Amino acid sequence: MTSRSSVEPFALRDVAAFDHECDVLVAGFGCAGAAAAFEAARAGADVLVLERASGAGGSSAQSGGELYLGGGTAIQKACGFDDDPDTMFAYLEAALGPHADTEKLRLYCDGSVEHFEWLRECGVPFNSTFYDKPTWMPMSDDGLMWLGENSWPYNTVARPVPRGHRPAAAGFGGGILMERLAAAALGAGAAAHTDTLATNLVLDDDGRVAGVVARKYGKTVLYRARTAVILTTGGFVDDEEMLADHAPVLLGHGKVSDGLDDGSGIRMAAAVGAATRRMGVVEIALTALPAMVCRGMLVDGLGRRFINEDVYPGHWSVHAVRHQPGPYWTIIDEEGFEDVPEPDRWGLRPRYVTETLAELEASLGMPPGSLETTVETYNRHAEKGEDPYFHKDPKWLRPLRAPFAAIDPRAGFFGGGAGQGGSGVAGFTLGGLRTTVDGEVLNGSGVPVLGLYAAGRAASGMHGEGYVSGTSLGDGTFFGRRAGRAAAGTP
Amino acid sequence: MTSRSSVEPFALRDVAAFDHECDVLVAGFGCAGAAAAFEAARAGADVLVLERASGAGGSSAQSGGELYLGGGTAIQKACGFDDDPDTMFAYLEAALGPHADTEKLRLYCDGSVEHFEWLRECGVPFNSTFYDKPTWMPMSDDGLMWLGENSWPYNTVARPVPRGHRPAAAGFGGGILMERLAAAALGAGAAAHTDTLATNLVLDDDGRVAGVVARKYGKTVLYRARTAVILTTGGFVDDEEMLADHAPVLLGHGKVSDGLDDGSGIRMAAAVGAATRRMGVVEIALTALPAMVCRGMLVDGLGRRFINEDVYPGHWSVHAVRHQPGPYWTIIDEEGFEDVPEPDRWGLRPRYVTETLAELEASLGMPPGSLETTVETYNRHAEKGEDPYFHKDPKWLRPLRAPFAAIDPRAGFFGGGAGQGGSGVAGFTLGGLRTTVDGEVLNGSGVPVLGLYAAGRAASGMHGEGYVSGTSLGDGTFFGRRAGRAAAGTP
Repeated sequence: MTSRSSVEPFALRDVAAFDHECDVLVAGFGCAGAAAAFEAARAGADVLVLERASGAGGSSAQSGGELYLGGGTAIQKACGFDDDPDTMFAYLEAALGPHADTEKLRLYCDGSVEHFEWLRECGVPFNSTFYDKPTWMPMSDDGLMWLGENSWPYNTVARPVPRGHRPAAAGFGGGILMERLAAAALGAGAAAHTDTLATNLVLDDDGRVAGVVARKYGKTVLYRARTAVILTTGGFVDDEEMLADHAPVLLGHGKVSDGLDDGSGIRMAAAVGAATRRMGVVEIALTALPAMVCRGMLVDGLGRRFINEDVYPGHWSVHAVRHQPGPYWTIIDEEGFEDVPEPDRWGLRPRYVTETLAELEASLGMPPGSLETTVETYNRHAEKGEDPYFHKDPKWLRPLRAPFAAIDPRAGFFGGGAGQGGSGVAGFTLGGLRTTVDGEVLNGSGVPVLGLYAAGRAASGMHGEGYVSGTSLGDGTFFGRRAGRAAAGTP
Repeated sequence: MTSRSSVEPFALRDVAAFDHECDVLVAGFGCAGAAAAFEAARAGADVLVLERASGAGGSSAQSGGELYLGGGTAIQKACGFDDDPDTMFAYLEAALGPHADTEKLRLYCDGSVEHFEWLRECGVPFNSTFYDKPTWMPMSDDGLMWLGENSWPYNTVARPVPRGHRPAAAGFGGGILMERLAAAALGAGAAAHTDTLATNLVLDDDGRVAGVVARKYGKTVLYRARTAVILTTGGFVDDEEMLADHAPVLLGHGKVSDGLDDGSGIRMAAAVGAATRRMGVVEIALTALPAMVCRGMLVDGLGRRFINEDVYPGHWSVHAVRHQPGPYWTIIDEEGFEDVPEPDRWGLRPRYVTETLAELEASLGMPPGSLETTVETYNRHAEKGEDPYFHKDPKWLRPLRAPFAAIDPRAGFFGGGAGQGGSGVAGFTLGGLRTTVDGEVLNGSGVPVLGLYAAGRAASGMHGEGYVSGTSLGDGTFFGRRAGRAAAGTP
C-alpha cells in the first residue's frame, strides 16, 4: 500500500494568515456546487466557489443532462401526463432500492415541481415535447422521456408516468444545464476561483471546520470560511485506490466522469471523522442499445435471458455486470434489426449472423442447446403475447425467426467499447459522505461535523442499491440547494 | 437519523489519571485478540485484553471452528494430500476473489504450515482424519474437509487439495478453539479484564493513540496504553444502523455472531481518521443442505439452476441471495433424497412432493414449463455425465426421475429458518479498517495512525468479494499474531 497525497486537516491555530475569506466556501463547481452557491448567495452569504478545472461544469457538464423530476411539472402536464408526488415516490423507492433513503426521497418528490421551476428560473431551457422510445439518450431535443417507469415490476408498483426531464439540446444536455446553473450562481453573487483544488480542511480547536487549504498553479492558497464549507467535489470513480478499497467492481471498466472524480472531498472529510455511507454502490452502463435489446433479447454467456429488456437500461446493465456470467449478447432477428430506426443503431452492426441458433450458440461459445432452449421458450410464450419469466411489455413480444444475429455490447459506443480497448462497461460511484437532508455531514457518532456540508456525488444521496438516470443531477441540485441554504444559516 | 453512543476520541491532556496502564492494550478477546495478545506478551510486552462479555470467546467461540490452512500441514500429509503454498494461493485468490488482497494472501499461504503448528502448540487439538462429503460442517470430529477446492471452476485453477482444518470436536469446534487460544494468551502473560467495553480511543496532541476509554458495570474506566492499542472488536452485523449504511443486503436476515458484533471498534477508529475498506462485503449462508443440493439441484424463483451445486455452500448462498430472484428451492427426486445419509438431513423434509414437474412448478409459483425445461435440460446432459452450464462433478450427475420433491431452504437450521420466523439467510460482515499486513491501521492518506492496530473482522482482511469457511478464524489468528508482534515492537 502506498501513502498518497495527504488529506489530513490543518489546525486553524497553525495558520498565520489566510489568502481569502468568505462566509460559505463551496468546493467543486458541478451541479451540486452551483446549486449550493446559488442558494447561499441568494440568502445573503458571501460565497466563494473553488473549482480545480479552468471553469465550471465538472462531470455534470459532460453528462446527458437528464433530471429526474415529476409530481406534476409543467412539461408533464403539457405532454398530457398526470403525476403526483406519491406516485413519483412509489416508483423511485422501488427503482432506487432496495434500501433507498426514504427521508431524502420524500423531500425530493414533494419538492420536485418547485425544483423544476427553479431550474427554469435559472435559465435552463426545456421543450414540452415527449420522446416515446427506448434509448439511453434521445438524439432529439425533446424535453420528456421514460426512465423505466413503464416496465415491470415498476408498472405494478406505481402508475407509469415519464419523468426524465431533458434540457433543450440534441443529445448531451449537461453542457447547457451547467452553463445556465453556473451563470445563475454567479448572477446571485457567488464568486469563483478556478484552477484551484481544495486539498485539506482547516479545523479550529473545537473541531469546527473553519476553511480549506487549496493548491493553485503549484502554490498553497489558504481560504477562511467564516460560516461553513460545502463539499461538492464529486464521486471517486477516477481514483483507482479508492475503487479497489470500496467499489472494485468498476476496476478495469470505463468511467462516466470528467476524469477528475477522485474522491478527494470524501477523503478530506473522513480525515476529520466524517462517516461514509454505501461506498460500494455504483451505477453501471453496459453499452448495449435499448432499441435493439427491446426488440430482441439480452442473454448472458450461458445463453440465458435474465431480465425484461424494456427496463431502464441501467437496470439491465447492473444486473448483467453484477449478477450474470459474461459475456453478454444482444440476440435479435433480421426483422427486429431492420425495425430499429437508423439513428437508434448508433453505428452498431451484428457481429454474428446465422440461419440457426445452434450455429449461433456455437459461435458464441455457449453450452449446446442453450440459446435454442432460451429462444424456444421465449417464442412459445411470445406467440401468446406473454413473458411469464420477466414480463416484458407485450408490444415488444414477437417470436424471433431466422436469420438470427448476435451483437456484442462491447462493440459499442461511449465508455470504451471493445473496439477502443474498453470493456463495454462504464460506471460511476454513488457512495459518499453521510449527510442529513440539509447536507450536514455526520460523524461516526451520528453528530454533525460543525461547519461542514456536502452534496452531489461526494455525499450518499437518495439511492439504495438501484439507480435511474437523472437522479444524480436531480439530487445533486436539489440537496445542493438545501445545503446552500442551511450553510448560509437560512434552512 | 439518530445520534448514537459517541465514539469520538478523548484527548490525553484531558485525562487526569488512568485507572490501568499497560504496554499493549487489546480490545476484544475473540480469536484475533487472543492471537495478538499471545504474541505481544510473548515478545515481552505488558498486555491487557479488554472483553465486553464475561469471558473470552466472542463470535469465534460460537463458530464451527474451521481454520483454512494448507501448504502441506501435518494433517494434510497424514491424510495423504500433497499441498504447497502456491497451489493454496491460487485457490484462495480465486475463491476469495475477485479482488482478493494478494499481499496479505501471499503471506498467509507462505506462513500457513507454521501457523498450524502454532495452533497446535497453543493446545488446539486436531485429528488426522478426513471427512470426504459435502456439508456445512461435519457432525464428526474429523480434522480435515473440503472447502470448495474440488469444484468447478476452482479445480481448473488449482489442483484440488482439501484445506478445511477442524479442531477435534463433533460439530461446532469454535468453543474448544477459543478455550485453548485464550488460555495460551493468558499463559503467555497477558491479563484480561472482562465485562469491560472499549468505547473511545485516547489521543495525544500528536494524534498518537495513547489508550482507551471503557465502560464496566456502568462506570468509566480509563486505560493507558504506552505502546499501542489493537482493535479486535469484530465486525458489525449486529448494528442495524451500520448495516443500513454499509451492507443493507443483510438487513432482515439472521446474524452469524455472538450478538455483540456492533462495529464499535471500526467506528472508534474512523472517528480518529482511520480509513475503512470494502464495508459492503458480506458472507451469506442460505440454510440449504449441501448433501441434498449436490444430489439434486438448487433453483431460483423462476425454476432456473444458476450454479454447480457442489461448490463451497457459501458460494451458492451468496450467488442466490445476491444475484437471483427468490425464493430458492432444493429440487430433488426420491432416489436422491433417500441417498442422503440421515445425519446429513439435519431434520429437513420435503415441503412438496409431486409426480410431475408441472405440478411442482405450479405449487411453487414458477412460470409454466420453467422447471420442466430446467430438469429436461439437466437430464439430457446428465445422461452423458455432463453439465455444460455449470460443470458439477460427474459423480453427482444423474437424471432426476419422478417422484420429485422441493425443499424450502428457509425451513432450515441455524440462522433462523422460516419455521422460527427467519429468512433462511444468515450472514456476517467482512469489511473493516484498512490495515497493513502488520495490522497497522491506515488513515485516508495511506499513513498509519500511530499506535493503532487492528485484526480480525474489525479489519478488512484477505478477502475480495468471495469467502470460504475458515478464512475468518484463519486470517483473524494469522494477522492477529502479526499485529501483536508489531504492536510490541518486534515485527
